[in-house]
Amino acid sequence: REYQGSPIGTDIECEGWRQEAALRMLNNNLDPDVAEKPEELVVYGGTGRAARSWDAYDTIVDELRELGDTETLLVQSGKPVGRFETHEKAPRVLIANSNLVGKWDNWEHFHELEAKGQIMYGQMTAGSWAYIGTQGIIQGTYETLAALAREHYPDNDGLRGKIVVTGGLGGMGGAQPLAVTMNHGVCIAAEVDEDRIDRRIETGYCQEKTDDLSTAIERAQEAAANGEPYSIGIHMNAADMLAEMLEMGFVPDVVTDQTSAHDELEGYYPAGYTVEEADGLRERDPETYVAESLETMERHVEGILELQDRGAIAFEYGNNIRGQVEDHRDLDSAFDFPGFVPAYIRPLFCEGKGPFRWAALSGDPADIHRTDDAVKELFPEKDDLHRWIDLAQEQVSFQGLPSRVCWLGYATEDGLTERARLALRINELVADGEISAPVVVTRDHLDAGSVASPNRETEAMKDGTDAVADWPILNALLNCAAGADIVSVHDGGGVGIGNSLHTNNHVVLDGSDLAAEKARRVFTTDPGMGVIRHADAGYEIAQDMADENNVAVPMRDRNRDR
Amino acid sequence: REYQGSPIGTDIECEGWRQEAALRMLNNNLDPDVAEKPEELVVYGGTGRAARSWDAYDTIVDELRELGDTETLLVQSGKPVGRFETHEKAPRVLIANSNLVGKWDNWEHFHELEAKGQIMYGQMTAGSWAYIGTQGIIQGTYETLAALAREHYPDNDGLRGKIVVTGGLGGMGGAQPLAVTMNHGVCIAAEVDEDRIDRRIETGYCQEKTDDLSTAIERAQEAAANGEPYSIGIHMNAADMLAEMLEMGFVPDVVTDQTSAHDELEGYYPAGYTVEEADGLRERDPETYVAESLETMERHVEGILELQDRGAIAFEYGNNIRGQVEDHRDLDSAFDFPGFVPAYIRPLFCEGKGPFRWAALSGDPADIHRTDDAVKELFPEKDDLHRWIDLAQEQVSFQGLPSRVCWLGYATEDGLTERARLALRINELVADGEISAPVVVTRDHLDAGSVASPNRETEAMKDGTDAVADWPILNALLNCAAGADIVSVHDGGGVGIGNSLHTNNHVVLDGSDLAAEKARRVFTTDPGMGVIRHADAGYEIAQDMADENNVAVPMRDRNRDR
Ligand SMILES: NC(=O)c1ccc[n+]([C@@H]2O[C@H](COP(=O)([O-])OP(=O)(O)OC[C@H]3O[C@@H](n4cnc5c(N)ncnc54)[C@H](O)[C@@H]3O)[C@@H](O)[C@H]2O)c1
Ligand SMILES: NC(=O)c1ccc[n+]([C@@H]2O[C@H](COP(=O)([O-])OP(=O)(O)OC[C@H]3O[C@@H](n4cnc5c(N)ncnc54)[C@H](O)[C@@H]3O)[C@@H](O)[C@H]2O)c1
Repeated sequence: REYQGSPIGTDIECEGWRQEAALRMLNNNLDPDVAEKPEELVVYGGTGRAARSWDAYDTIVDELRELGDTETLLVQSGKPVGRFETHEKAPRVLIANSNLVGKWDNWEHFHELEAKGQIMYGQMTAGSWAYIGTQGIIQGTYETLAALAREHYPDNDGLRGKIVVTGGLGGMGGAQPLAVTMNHGVCIAAEVDEDRIDRRIETGYCQEKTDDLSTAIERAQEAAANGEPYSIGIHMNAADMLAEMLEMGFVPDVVTDQTSAHDELEGYYPAGYTVEEADGLRERDPETYVAESLETMERHVEGILELQDRGAIAFEYGNNIRGQVEDHRDLDSAFDFPGFVPAYIRPLFCEGKGPFRWAALSGDPADIHRTDDAVKELFPEKDDLHRWIDLAQEQVSFQGLPSRVCWLGYATEDGLTERARLALRINELVADGEISAPVVVTRDHLDAGSVASPNRETEAMKDGTDAVADWPILNALLNCAAGADIVSVHDGGGVGIGNSLHTNNHVVLDGSDLAAEKARRVFTTDPGMGVIRHADAGYEIAQDMADENNVAVPMRDRNRDR
Repeated sequence: REYQGSPIGTDIECEGWRQEAALRMLNNNLDPDVAEKPEELVVYGGTGRAARSWDAYDTIVDELRELGDTETLLVQSGKPVGRFETHEKAPRVLIANSNLVGKWDNWEHFHELEAKGQIMYGQMTAGSWAYIGTQGIIQGTYETLAALAREHYPDNDGLRGKIVVTGGLGGMGGAQPLAVTMNHGVCIAAEVDEDRIDRRIETGYCQEKTDDLSTAIERAQEAAANGEPYSIGIHMNAADMLAEMLEMGFVPDVVTDQTSAHDELEGYYPAGYTVEEADGLRERDPETYVAESLETMERHVEGILELQDRGAIAFEYGNNIRGQVEDHRDLDSAFDFPGFVPAYIRPLFCEGKGPFRWAALSGDPADIHRTDDAVKELFPEKDDLHRWIDLAQEQVSFQGLPSRVCWLGYATEDGLTERARLALRINELVADGEISAPVVVTRDHLDAGSVASPNRETEAMKDGTDAVADWPILNALLNCAAGADIVSVHDGGGVGIGNSLHTNNHVVLDGSDLAAEKARRVFTTDPGMGVIRHADAGYEIAQDMADENNVAVPMRDRNRDR
């Protein structure tokens, strides 16, 4: 099936902009410029889908077109299963994807159900209609590498002169070369699928393609020596690349990976096969595929560990490759290199900061540029943010609906959080006609208070509550109570079935008072969950944040008052 | 700590009745007449607690007393962790208990966290403040046995002349003897804890206590022969009882069990120890305790299977004893006897029917009697319901706040479901002063559309989606969207950690228009989830129900229209 992407402009097909926003975001997810395999409804991240089947997709579209302003549509693993009367301040769409009862919460049972068409993998933003292409992850990757540089090379100009080696140039991983060069460094990224490398080069995320490793290393060393940002996609298996580097005695400054290792069957490619051969093997003999895939993964992790031993800075980049190898190959040392969240991101989560983002439903880039100005106007003192906006305008091409990502948090001014202030300002600009059509505000599921994921976002929590999933559930309920227009809860995502639970929200800024009311509440409660979750776990940054911004932490407040 | 139970009467301590209702229901849960071990905050079902600690309890009480009419309190595994501004139509309290990320979703990890005070077992209605004592389960047990009698003894007067053998006279299990005699049968129930038997006798749920099995069997046979309802609590281990019955060549008509087998450490008692000895062993050497407990459980299941072979009707009564023995003792035949839901309850779930219940916040039994009349007035044609109300008035003593349970469903009249009609009628009676104070309406987590539990409520679903947990999550979100006053999501419950996910809701009927609005919506969407969940799974009763009552089932509706 050929697919065109999202409707744009100021005329709507639905009864209101809230429903229209859901429709456009769903379609934007499947825009050929945004999604990895739109013809199969696959958006990104292995098999992360926007709808369970084309039949389900068509029915969702029909339902959204007719959905009233006080009705709520229910979507269960990508399929519309109900529609009920609720009220104006309630969400218009509620979504639950890929969730399984604990004991059955694994790939095996999931794949059984999937084969019968009874469940769908929602990944993080695929099934919640919030994916905006590689531009969505770019700031997160940029922030992570910037934090790494600050910590390990405090006197360096970012990553200038440093070589970062990684794998995977898919929907998310494709952001890596650009994020490295934005930090002035040099990147070598292995990718088995040549088309993916070409795509990153077309969109300016990556600069050169080769299939010769010696050439890649030479070019990288040259650029690093000259202090020039540069990026190279190397067409080979990432595990093989690391093994060969070790043989050649080459040790990069930083090593990480974003192949889809979370899914050993449909995400990761075993060594020794072309993509076509491997795809054939998967079809013919999935068991052998999985065995080979896990064996390659083990070599892959061993390569990372050996490079770490020889002096490289190593971190896992959220694809659960450590967990996979520990679980299935009994490699005890798998977790001897850290995940990126405890290493670089958690301090931001403590302040309620995370990948806040918005998309212009008009389809007009000028609308996003107006919001860029709004960010700069609202936060005149934040140099980093200004630098980010400039870099993004220059180097990040729009995909599908024009969008912007900005890591904003809870910190309040006049009782309004950073996120709320910006959302209210955008809502005013829509009301005043300075922005041509409503803007939808959402975020990644990887956010301060929205996720339990022991191998990633909640790895190594101070109090050991990594696996406690009450928090994302409360987050989803609270988003619903606060009046988000779409609320979703997913199992799995980037780390695979049974390894995480996480949520999302959308608020449609159509310039109305209702939108302002929803935005003020949702963008207080949602980052607020990040603050209380980390305060409860004993993080001082979060506790200070709560104290300074009047966030209620009942047990702490009461015991202090006494 | 000594504990008094719920405040009653028409004066309130909180800012409004919604908050007051939460406070009274929490306290009612811990009423010594209602809870099993209130001094430890344990309400029922092994270690099902109302709050994580007394410190947490005190803080919840303080928070509820001060909670505004547009604020929402967050409770995470029995501990208050946040308070945010929402709006009037949103819930006042959101609760998530015992939830763990899939891979860690097991007793072992739970107990580790519990030992550090970082999580709490919420059971089903304990942690959601909806437990009302044994009276809460009585109608469910009564309905199940009535369905059994209809199926297996169609020409008999219920269970008259039949002997039912079971185990466990705890919070839930204690309802069994009375439910049997209400169906005119004879019950022998094994219970290791003599105090529990005494308690059932005091409250009229059980008639006689003995510790001699021959006596018990003789008395039972005599009563059965005379067609007299009778109930006997036998003070012994249930596994031993079945083994001895087999030796003696005695085969009852029906065999089941409600010991707390879902929790091998803190719920079930191993044979060969008194309660005191076993409690000491648990403290001293939990590993040995668990080993002995599981060994007894295996003998217990073998006893049930052997009795079934010899002609008894056997069913599991929702304590996961089959799952426990299959998992931990590799007994392949464990599931050779059915669970009670597929056997007797599912057809009711297809119609959105489930254990709807309400409590009079005044504490005045007259208020419940007024609601009893309302049930009869509203449903003049439902003989079964009238009979139930009469039996309940006669034989079910109130515990804590006077309450009533009535299995009602989705069936509509003038667009209002059974549940909505009754709730709206009660709300009017409160408004008119015919009922002296507000009434809170809630239900069990075991309900038509609120639970995924492959060994119990969703065992053997027609399409094999037993473990799909999207449904309870959508149910909780929708309850929230519809404006329930308390919404909760729990893992575990009656079948143990990792074996189920389920939700609850409360709506406070204070006579206001807001209450009417909330009740109309919640009591449509909530049973409605039961209808769509079962329609989606292919149950014709549910599909007919949807067609006849205008419940949207989008994919089905669309494909039929074409
Ligand atoms: N850190 C984060 O914030 C974050 C965010 C999103 C996703 N992720 C995770 O990162 C991973 C990548 O996500 P994505 O959206 O880019 O996935 P994707 O499936 O779109 O892309 C994965 C890419 O890896 C390539 N690949 C697979 N195995 C390979 C191998 N052995 N050697 C070389 N290339 C190989 C594939 O050809 C594909 O292009 C996933 O596991 C995802 O869950 C992390
Ligand atoms: N079917 C349902 O609808 C339903 C509803 C609620 C609870 N349950 C399940 O039923 C079980 C009982 O619930 P409860 O609230 O009564 O629990 P409880 O912990 O209050 O009572 C359990 C009783 O069983 C006794 N017991 C334990 N092991 C025994 C043994 N081997 N022999 C004899 N007696 C033994 C204990 O002394 C205790 O009195 C639980 O597993 C619960 O999860 C089922």
